[in-house]
Amino acid sequence: MKKLINDPENVVDEALVGIEASNHNVRVDHEHRVVLRAQPKDHGKVALVSGGGSGHEPLHSGYVGYGMLDAACAGEVFTSPTPDRIEAATLAVDAGAGVLHIVKNYTGDVMNFDMAAELVAAESGIEVETVVTNDDVAVEDSLYTAGRRGVGVTVLLEKIAGAAAEEGRSLVDVRDIAQRVNSRGRSMGMALTSCTVSTAGRPTFDLPDDEMEIGIGIHGEPGRQREKMASAREIAAKLVNPILGDMDFSSSPVIAMLNGMGASPLIELYLMYGEVAALLQKNGVSIARNLVGNYITSLDMAGCSLTLLAADDEMLRLWDAPVQTAALRWGR
Amino acid sequence: MKKLINDPENVVDEALVGIEASNHNVRVDHEHRVVLRAQPKDHGKVALVSGGGSGHEPLHSGYVGYGMLDAACAGEVFTSPTPDRIEAATLAVDAGAGVLHIVKNYTGDVMNFDMAAELVAAESGIEVETVVTNDDVAVEDSLYTAGRRGVGVTVLLEKIAGAAAEEGRSLVDVRDIAQRVNSRGRSMGMALTSCTVSTAGRPTFDLPDDEMEIGIGIHGEPGRQREKMASAREIAAKLVNPILGDMDFSSSPVIAMLNGMGASPLIELYLMYGEVAALLQKNGVSIARNLVGNYITSLDMAGCSLTLLAADDEMLRLWDAPVQTAALRWGR
Repeated sequence: MKKLINDPENVVDEALVGIEASNHNVRVDHEHRVVLRAQPKDHGKVALVSGGGSGHEPLHSGYVGYGMLDAACAGEVFTSPTPDRIEAATLAVDAGAGVLHIVKNYTGDVMNFDMAAELVAAESGIEVETVVTNDDVAVEDSLYTAGRRGVGVTVLLEKIAGAAAEEGRSLVDVRDIAQRVNSRGRSMGMALTSCTVSTAGRPTFDLPDDEMEIGIGIHGEPGRQREKMASAREIAAKLVNPILGDMDFSSSPVIAMLNGMGASPLIELYLMYGEVAALLQKNGVSIARNLVGNYITSLDMAGCSLTLLAADDEMLRLWDAPVQTAALRWGR
Repeated sequence: MKKLINDPENVVDEALVGIEASNHNVRVDHEHRVVLRAQPKDHGKVALVSGGGSGHEPLHSGYVGYGMLDAACAGEVFTSPTPDRIEAATLAVDAGAGVLHIVKNYTGDVMNFDMAAELVAAESGIEVETVVTNDDVAVEDSLYTAGRRGVGVTVLLEKIAGAAAEEGRSLVDVRDIAQRVNSRGRSMGMALTSCTVSTAGRPTFDLPDDEMEIGIGIHGEPGRQREKMASAREIAAKLVNPILGDMDFSSSPVIAMLNGMGASPLIELYLMYGEVAALLQKNGVSIARNLVGNYITSLDMAGCSLTLLAADDEMLRLWDAPVQTAALRWGR
């Protein structure tokens, strides 16, 4: 294992030091491993808290800032943050209008965010609502999940719900639009290589030099099947077809994200995007907006995932609204 | 070799298809492999043309747009674009105020941009000026270079000179500020792994599982030395010390870029940035602005580089000016 780290046990804490040093728009509560906006609270705004295991950067810390999250809780690599830390984040960001928890569907995350919401309810009058993302069409259940896994739609949801919150919408309104985004989003991923968790010191799984894993999860958990390596064009079909088979995307403009898993270079991601865009066009799907790059990663895994969101006019308007975070920034 | 590609021979052309599909602010002249701004020419503005071998994405195509480049020429992977293509780019973007060629110091690039400038001079009245970047302190000469190699400062220079051009400054002015940026910038890189050029099909060099290459070039060309793997803190010193030994950075605010080589995940780059920032502070260097991420890569190489620019007030003002490209976007 070769990584740019010091002690394998301290990777998350030391990465948070760098995140804080690099971005004057955030501050870090190092005790609780929470990344927060640096500016004072905006009274009356619904606050958005997300989080989960680390190793998926820029998710979630890179999405803290104007127009997206108010706080991100960083667990150990691929391990949910504990309820007391999520509680601390929730208490820190509430500005009198309640807090939305954005949770990817993994057993540990769902349980810990639930417990945090109960702690907050018991100890304060703060209202908490929760949205759980479950957009991954690859598998129904997995190693860490009952039901579908939450993956790429989480990025799009945090942007759109964050813009709704900036507009001064109510907690129930923001939760409803978040749930609508989740229900209209689907994802599918694949890996060329495993990832390596630093404390384990070796790859999470073995993948022969001539094989790929289709339907991979973002923690290296198994996908649908292993197959012989194929061309980008064939891989594009293996991502697009299961998504289109699961939901009709032909009647709304689509926000498409071609996401890198962490170790695939941009030249390959652009090439893949070209293949995906051509295939979607052939299937009558119209791409209104897109992202190409590393947005929800799996440490040093090579590979990519595709997320499609059937957007309505309101979602497109909220997507285009200003955002000022480390990983997404426009319009301001 | 496992990559998200179709035919190894068509990687550049097919990546350009994806670049064009993903970004409505650019168009691609596929015949000449030139990425151009989509908007009509801004009459009287100095135009900026850069380019070089592909495989360093987002450099240079990701920097085409308002506030940076007018055109980027994409050569084959790690191979200079031919003079006729650079000429085509230059003719396409001239808006009556002349064209600045921004060239990284590699023998092929310098020769081909020179020939292109001669072709343009012979066939049109367009004025061309050239700036050659040579910021890499690692080696004096290398496999592809006489003199120091041009690396990370190219990104900072394209941003700052691009902002000067948007202000309506003259060609000589824009060239002068570009040269000043180059003269005040220094870089140093390192690799944990080789990169693999798709047409070669195997890693450019072999690096044992417990070694790293210090002073690596962006094409996998040799650096200063091979060493046993070390901690992020030790690696930070191996990047910072040669740079500070080459130039004094204690009397100006610094723009710092901690750049990933393509396959190093963001969690590691943030951790490295924290180490670099602490070491710079200890050395009396004050960071005014920073970038952390993949900005000038070497295909699927794991590793990172550090670039420091001793900025003056004008450079900081131009740095903060609006920019609207795929890879850098703010203030608008």
